[in-house]
Amino acid sequence: MSASPHAKTSQGRFFEDFRIGQTIRHATPRTITVGDVALYNGLFGGRFAVQSSDAFAQTIGYSRSPLDDLLVFHIVFGKTVADISLNAVANLGYADCRFLKSVFPGATLTATSDVIGLRENSNKKTGIVYVRSRGFDETGDAVLDFARWVMVRKRNETAATPTERIPDLPKTVDPAQLGAACPKIHAAAYDTTLAGSPHRFSDYNTGDRIDHIDGITVEEAEHQIATRLYQNTARIHFNQFAESEGRFGRRLIYGGHAISLSRALSFNGLANAFHIAAINGGRHVAPLFSGDTVFAWSEVLTAAEIPNRKDVGALRLRTVATKDRPCPDFPLKGGEEYDPAVILDIDYWVLMPR
Amino acid sequence: MSASPHAKTSQGRFFEDFRIGQTIRHATPRTITVGDVALYNGLFGGRFAVQSSDAFAQTIGYSRSPLDDLLVFHIVFGKTVADISLNAVANLGYADCRFLKSVFPGATLTATSDVIGLRENSNKKTGIVYVRSRGFDETGDAVLDFARWVMVRKRNETAATPTERIPDLPKTVDPAQLGAACPKIHAAAYDTTLAGSPHRFSDYNTGDRIDHIDGITVEEAEHQIATRLYQNTARIHFNQFAESEGRFGRRLIYGGHAISLSRALSFNGLANAFHIAAINGGRHVAPLFSGDTVFAWSEVLTAAEIPNRKDVGALRLRTVATKDRPCPDFPLKGGEEYDPAVILDIDYWVLMPR
Amino acid sequence: MSASPHAKTSQGRFFEDFRIGQTIRHATPRTITVGDVALYNGLFGGRFAVQSSDAFAQTIGYSRSPLDDLLVFHIVFGKTVADISLNAVANLGYADCRFLKSVFPGATLTATSDVIGLRENSNKKTGIVYVRSRGFDETGDAVLDFARWVMVRKRNETAATPTERIPDLPKTVDPAQLGAACPKIHAAAYDTTLAGSPHRFSDYNTGDRIDHIDGITVEEAEHQIATRLYQNTARIHFNQFAESEGRFGRRLIYGGHAISLSRALSFNGLANAFHIAAINGGRHVAPLFSGDTVFAWSEVLTAAEIPNRKDVGALRLRTVATKDRPCPDFPLKGGEEYDPAVILDIDYWVLMPR
Repeated sequence: MSASPHAKTSQGRFFEDFRIGQTIRHATPRTITVGDVALYNGLFGGRFAVQSSDAFAQTIGYSRSPLDDLLVFHIVFGKTVADISLNAVANLGYADCRFLKSVFPGATLTATSDVIGLRENSNKKTGIVYVRSRGFDETGDAVLDFARWVMVRKRNETAATPTERIPDLPKTVDPAQLGAACPKIHAAAYDTTLAGSPHRFSDYNTGDRIDHIDGITVEEAEHQIATRLYQNTARIHFNQFAESEGRFGRRLIYGGHAISLSRALSFNGLANAFHIAAINGGRHVAPLFSGDTVFAWSEVLTAAEIPNRKDVGALRLRTVATKDRPCPDFPLKGGEEYDPAVILDIDYWVLMPR
Repeated sequence: MSASPHAKTSQGRFFEDFRIGQTIRHATPRTITVGDVALYNGLFGGRFAVQSSDAFAQTIGYSRSPLDDLLVFHIVFGKTVADISLNAVANLGYADCRFLKSVFPGATLTATSDVIGLRENSNKKTGIVYVRSRGFDETGDAVLDFARWVMVRKRNETAATPTERIPDLPKTVDPAQLGAACPKIHAAAYDTTLAGSPHRFSDYNTGDRIDHIDGITVEEAEHQIATRLYQNTARIHFNQFAESEGRFGRRLIYGGHAISLSRALSFNGLANAFHIAAINGGRHVAPLFSGDTVFAWSEVLTAAEIPNRKDVGALRLRTVATKDRPCPDFPLKGGEEYDPAVILDIDYWVLMPR
Repeated sequence: MSASPHAKTSQGRFFEDFRIGQTIRHATPRTITVGDVALYNGLFGGRFAVQSSDAFAQTIGYSRSPLDDLLVFHIVFGKTVADISLNAVANLGYADCRFLKSVFPGATLTATSDVIGLRENSNKKTGIVYVRSRGFDETGDAVLDFARWVMVRKRNETAATPTERIPDLPKTVDPAQLGAACPKIHAAAYDTTLAGSPHRFSDYNTGDRIDHIDGITVEEAEHQIATRLYQNTARIHFNQFAESEGRFGRRLIYGGHAISLSRALSFNGLANAFHIAAINGGRHVAPLFSGDTVFAWSEVLTAAEIPNRKDVGALRLRTVATKDRPCPDFPLKGGEEYDPAVILDIDYWVLMPR
């Protein structure tokens, strides 16, 4: 008989379980199929033509519709949760997230994380763990690479304090690094009517602000199905019994859900932004709960050419999502503080046909 | 910087944006997969053998299971919403809806609409737009053709009144026009035990009335997932924040959801009505909301032979759906008025093996 | 015109409609696809590597990822409902459930049931029907075989009492009968890191008890989508209008939903139990409703070798699920009575790599 009821179960890693340079191979490998795509579509309602139509994708140079970039992100991210953030107090940030290879239905994804930074908090109860996580397809090619940092509980407050190391992470991905996951496209063959908007790369300018107009109300069943689809096991999203005694009294929706909703909403105004090439950073400003209605607006921070590419250009976008607050006036901050309706502030690069 | 926050977003067309003879090509092309089929099955629970089993479909002469006809309808219809009915006050009717070609997983659908009629209302605030919408597969073949008319707001009440033109639409599709989307089937190989009912075409007679017995309660997550799956962007279905101040105080369920629920319920009594060949017309008599339980009954309006087809016959059905009201007594009207429980009254042709 | 509104609808069989030796072929044949797999994953969040990754499955000797065993069970079970248990007062038990052949996406399943026992209850109002149900793939091979017994209403209390016959069913499936649905695997190639746990067959011992820790809250939309996916038509799961006047005042969740949730939860502690080979029996101790949070724990009843197999060993598990009650202390019974939080007590065989 086991010595303890938990001898074979995983309680997740605590701060003192991480070591600089450690590489963690994550479970569970996952073959992504058209079934996953359909469920993702039903949950978010994406309308980007490249991801919706094999015929459209082929016309511009893909072999077929690639997976939605965020579906790839969520699946890779989900794999890291059980090893990295099961005992996280907070997800503090992302940086340097780059999509490196198109992923198509049938691909099998795995993930690893390298511990690249550690800093114990002065209270000795928690510490910050910095990891670089990578997703790979079944050929071993990297498809996604990103850094994130989380505040993790210590199992034992008296555990030794590790040498502090804070990694140097870029504030933004350089345009020269964009586009690895986007084949050279036939921009002239890109049918803007079918895609839903006449506006190409050259129609957007730094400083443009776009209200995405529509709102989507989230239900418990929806975010649970989505988050389980990614095999993300963070407990706070699924367990109402525990959360009824928790900080919010209810299930917290996975932050990635707000990102996917914002992306889907952004179609209205950015219909030809067919590929997310990189995520520079993001902040989950406030929690999202079932019953909330999500709105979003975007600002073009930079319109950049990609070296040696005449087919596509890159827009650096800031997309801000709110709850129960339409965005015709672009709510963001009042002084230092975020508008209380803001839930997400994300900075990323999208590609558009030229 | 853009002149306006909405310079690149679509607010949908208003009445004065439509012109007789105008052809509108709709976004977004869409490849339908077995993933869409599975999600549709999970949402409606269809049990028709031809759509459920590749082996069954092949036995009677299909290459594999075709898509549910209503899934095709909803996806084509969904494409038209952003261009035709985003500013609709009311969906007034459908007519002459014909399924023209079997659609299988892997097909990519696109859609166009021709403006075939216009009539401004006397209040100058709204007008009726008649369109003929068509769905096409990736080979360019039409798979679906239907007319509908919607009442649309004017952007500007002083805009010029167009010449009135009201199209002549058939009250019912002629039997000679039915069956284009149904291959010649081996009726003798159609296994009625596997299909769930011994009753073939010849067992139904004009005037037969059938209570479909069961009820299905609808949840917000379900209708939202379904309607997003069709990329239908009508705002009233998704935005509780806005609708809390709206006409009903809550999200209105897409009318097509009630049609699909009724079709699924109709299996009990019409299990061998394996194909919807045409929809003659339909009326959404009352709104459907989350938490309502849908029931349905059907009447055989006509049992018709199809010229030159000995394999299948056609039943013209009237199916009536109710909410929170079982239908053993076939509720419909008291005098001119519909029974208050009725939500849907639809007139369509189904095919059955002879 | 039909003589009755229900002349063509099925009301299900009553006790007096069953005869010993009768074989019932069930509707509806069903092709299972990767779409069904994705939806099942979204609903339950399974993380077993063999079912999640084609690449992982191929490494150990499968042609690709097999379907989750319980998805096969639910789909076969679902087919039997309309014929066997539509008028059931209670599902009394299962026995001798054996998985006989791996099932992969693309397979088409059908089902039959043989009536193997009958016993009228002394009140003459109900009787117990014992059936042996089998699922077959499109080649005619049996993929699943199980016995179950249900208490069914009589249509007419004066109907003749059949000769009583109670079948002799095994309390547990013999280890020699296990493994037909599991190919010989390359146990050395089974990557326990990717699979999420280092513990193989030899690490488990009779008497081990494992708390699976996590909890999952169930929503109405989730169990309805799942149960419709299986084409299970039991009315009590879908019809709030009727159930508001019923025994519980609300929709009862399909018992199989609790089994699938428990299986998904059991990953934490039993990550390498990649295949359910047999179900010896199970009891739905208490009903599960929307909003309840399910927890689970397991006990190893036996660790058994399978004759002539060096690749895998079998664990006989008892998994107990509770609602709104974590399981660190393994709640089960106080004397004869179950702990009031227990909802499921199931006894089954899983295979693990050696």
